[in-house]
Amino acid sequence: MTTPTDFVRDQWYVVASTDEISDIPLARTVCGEHIVLFRQTDGTIVALADRCPHRGYPLSLGAVVGDEIQCGYHGLRFDGCGTCTWVPLQNNIPSRANVETYPLATTGPWIWVWIGDPSAPDPDKLTALPWLDNPDWAEVHGMEPLAARYSLLIDNLLDLSHESFLHAGLIGTPEVALTPIETRVDEDADVVYVERHMESVECPPFYSDTTGLSTPIDRWQDIEYHPVGCYILHSRVAAAGVVPRPDGADPGAAHLTVLYAITPVDEHNTMDFWALARDFAVGDSAIGEYLARMNREVILQDVRALDLLEQRLAAEDDPSEVSLKIDTGALAARRMITRLAEQAQTPMPTR
Amino acid sequence: MTTPTDFVRDQWYVVASTDEISDIPLARTVCGEHIVLFRQTDGTIVALADRCPHRGYPLSLGAVVGDEIQCGYHGLRFDGCGTCTWVPLQNNIPSRANVETYPLATTGPWIWVWIGDPSAPDPDKLTALPWLDNPDWAEVHGMEPLAARYSLLIDNLLDLSHESFLHAGLIGTPEVALTPIETRVDEDADVVYVERHMESVECPPFYSDTTGLSTPIDRWQDIEYHPVGCYILHSRVAAAGVVPRPDGADPGAAHLTVLYAITPVDEHNTMDFWALARDFAVGDSAIGEYLARMNREVILQDVRALDLLEQRLAAEDDPSEVSLKIDTGALAARRMITRLAEQAQTPMPTR
Amino acid sequence: MTTPTDFVRDQWYVVASTDEISDIPLARTVCGEHIVLFRQTDGTIVALADRCPHRGYPLSLGAVVGDEIQCGYHGLRFDGCGTCTWVPLQNNIPSRANVETYPLATTGPWIWVWIGDPSAPDPDKLTALPWLDNPDWAEVHGMEPLAARYSLLIDNLLDLSHESFLHAGLIGTPEVALTPIETRVDEDADVVYVERHMESVECPPFYSDTTGLSTPIDRWQDIEYHPVGCYILHSRVAAAGVVPRPDGADPGAAHLTVLYAITPVDEHNTMDFWALARDFAVGDSAIGEYLARMNREVILQDVRALDLLEQRLAAEDDPSEVSLKIDTGALAARRMITRLAEQAQTPMPTR
Repeated sequence: MTTPTDFVRDQWYVVASTDEISDIPLARTVCGEHIVLFRQTDGTIVALADRCPHRGYPLSLGAVVGDEIQCGYHGLRFDGCGTCTWVPLQNNIPSRANVETYPLATTGPWIWVWIGDPSAPDPDKLTALPWLDNPDWAEVHGMEPLAARYSLLIDNLLDLSHESFLHAGLIGTPEVALTPIETRVDEDADVVYVERHMESVECPPFYSDTTGLSTPIDRWQDIEYHPVGCYILHSRVAAAGVVPRPDGADPGAAHLTVLYAITPVDEHNTMDFWALARDFAVGDSAIGEYLARMNREVILQDVRALDLLEQRLAAEDDPSEVSLKIDTGALAARRMITRLAEQAQTPMPTR
Repeated sequence: MTTPTDFVRDQWYVVASTDEISDIPLARTVCGEHIVLFRQTDGTIVALADRCPHRGYPLSLGAVVGDEIQCGYHGLRFDGCGTCTWVPLQNNIPSRANVETYPLATTGPWIWVWIGDPSAPDPDKLTALPWLDNPDWAEVHGMEPLAARYSLLIDNLLDLSHESFLHAGLIGTPEVALTPIETRVDEDADVVYVERHMESVECPPFYSDTTGLSTPIDRWQDIEYHPVGCYILHSRVAAAGVVPRPDGADPGAAHLTVLYAITPVDEHNTMDFWALARDFAVGDSAIGEYLARMNREVILQDVRALDLLEQRLAAEDDPSEVSLKIDTGALAARRMITRLAEQAQTPMPTR
Repeated sequence: MTTPTDFVRDQWYVVASTDEISDIPLARTVCGEHIVLFRQTDGTIVALADRCPHRGYPLSLGAVVGDEIQCGYHGLRFDGCGTCTWVPLQNNIPSRANVETYPLATTGPWIWVWIGDPSAPDPDKLTALPWLDNPDWAEVHGMEPLAARYSLLIDNLLDLSHESFLHAGLIGTPEVALTPIETRVDEDADVVYVERHMESVECPPFYSDTTGLSTPIDRWQDIEYHPVGCYILHSRVAAAGVVPRPDGADPGAAHLTVLYAITPVDEHNTMDFWALARDFAVGDSAIGEYLARMNREVILQDVRALDLLEQRLAAEDDPSEVSLKIDTGALAARRMITRLAEQAQTPMPTR
């Protein structure tokens, strides 16, 4: 079933990229929670509940004044801790006038927000993404809004057979849907692995135009999915027959780490953050721009398909599905998400 | 009351015209059921449930490949019987992956789909429309979508007094609303007849521009309504005083059979298929185009009025009505539709 | 809480301005009731229920014929008393075919409609607005539709501290939010008074461009709110230090009476009628146009803010508020509205 899972709390979700944050307030919604982000004078990024406690006006429609944000309706001010520091015509400020802050974490260009108990953000739940901070790699990134529940994007990404059909001509070649996959599930670490190794296949323009490789190539797609919001696709392309060295070094191949951060907005909307990190043509920004443009085209094909699918699913009362072998990874992901959601609802043990 | 009747099943409804069907899939919704239509290489028209059983993606967003339709998401293929013939990466195809087919029938340019028990389409329930296939008659046709429940269109068509007001200047003249009507109801055959014979009246441009007649004319409007989806208006115009011969032949008059096929889409939408068959100017395609253009203008006046009425009715909680004598036919039609809906819900007798 | 109060009946609400009414029917909705207004040949303005009793078609889509309105669908006619005078093809007209009329009252350019028991319109509930009819004063007026519940507009108008933030640069100067207010509530007469007297403050362009005054000025804002639909702001500006004479005459000041008629349309929409009456530059229509244009800009700032606030409130399940001292008047207004709503539901005593 693809009915929306309740949002999983006690999780990090990407809320924005650092280059989106300035002294102009940015409004974002994550798991149904309205958040306003802004940058203080020393560069610190602040995330507050985007709702003035006075009459509910969005703080994001106000202005940043120094290190504070001021409501655009009646002028209430809030500092970076969410403390209300000014209201009109009275000196004693009610403590109820403070707003909630959101814990943040940063990885490369991405800002993660902790949705859950604000007093207990768990750094261990942040998946390491070293490619985003590694000077030997180059990255490009973006975000596309999706008018579809986030589970549809997870289904989509966990099986890439659809590349042959939905993305034919861009990254899809017939071989994708014809090459067997191997799915592994690490229930302890909460990771789903789906691997597809295509040998001696067509080289799509996405790679021929950027790596210097040409048909035939070996093309590996090794997926790691870390529920809820973090998806890593290790894409390796090399001339057919070229394999990594016994020590793991792989100088003859081009590596592209395709990252998706899947952020639920509300029951029917999702933010699809993406980043591409490459170890080839690292200094060539034109190749970065080409990859970004092509990847965005691919994502827009997904967006159109999933938006249409959402409209159907939201209206129909027939939620029947027929799962196939290609869905093994997606089904494992759904089970993990259900379990994580249940865990997040378990009350913390009292000491 | 004009609240939407539940859709009447075990009925034929026009779903498309034959010229709309090609090897590009056509999506239509009838009585809330999503249907995809396409043409096979030998010309056969196929109608399948427009929902891939895998993840619910509309098949109409895919492509026709030979005699099959292929899902645009993961490539599943279905033949003209709805049998799934291919899924990615597995040989044994689950039988649950098949999709439902819809029985079809064709009359002239119209394709009827059987909504109800797919194993028991009833050819006796198809109303004969000989004018659409008769080489001595010429026809033009089209369809306008209506953002209104289908019962509003039935109300509209069963009493033509409204022509004097809503269609003033086109087909409406003051005499329509001033000429008495005769209503007969055949409860056995499920037909409503409403007849209005105007004598020595104004000839509207619709007829003066196409038949050579001029004021005064005799103008007869003889309606046969076959619930749910089939409406026939026998329009006869002749110079005032000219009557049919005792044997029924009527060479001195021009005859236009105005056909409407009323197809419920969902609770608030309807397809208004129309066809005009004439026994005059049969070889003159310019006159056919003129009649089609004028009739479409008339229908668009109905569309605008009924769409606005639907918006009001859908929002209001006052469903009160005051029925007049002019509504006798429409009220009989409503009773018949209610009875047909009840019959369709009656389980078939077990042998 | 700002959830929509049930509409308060047995009240006058402004429905239109007199210059909007002609022999073209005007459709308006007040407190959820659809009303059609038109002008008869002798100039009398008529307001009827905008729903043909036959099949529910809006009468406002029909035409005025002489002193009657004719339904655009089947031609039923109604006179100024709502009596049905014609139906097609029958002489005896059912009395159920009559429509309700609405009592009206006129003050200056405004037409008030009585929402409640149509047999008992209460003239004592009309607030006198002498500035609109006084030849020594000049007025300009308009209306802006608001996609927000009417209670948000009342909250907005009952505290003008927001001028410093939402209307900064137009009528808002920093001093507004820094000057204490005095709130008085007359529970017997159902009036809320909120007064703010700013002394020796900046003169905003709104006044410097129209009165010849310049900074510093004394600027008084004396609000009278007569629930539900009538709000009066007595704005007095004068050179700093100039006060009214002991006898109340105030020749050294410019007076602008800013009137708002707040008319609920439905649960999420409101009509914001406004009028500005001035005792300065009375013969200078260019100044009237300037004030109208500036006031409309100010109102559009409110419209944008309240429309956004409505979207948030309509979607969220957190209706929490933190009320401040500036809200004293608004809270009193809410209590009065609740009491008036309860009174209107009390059945009239039987004699």
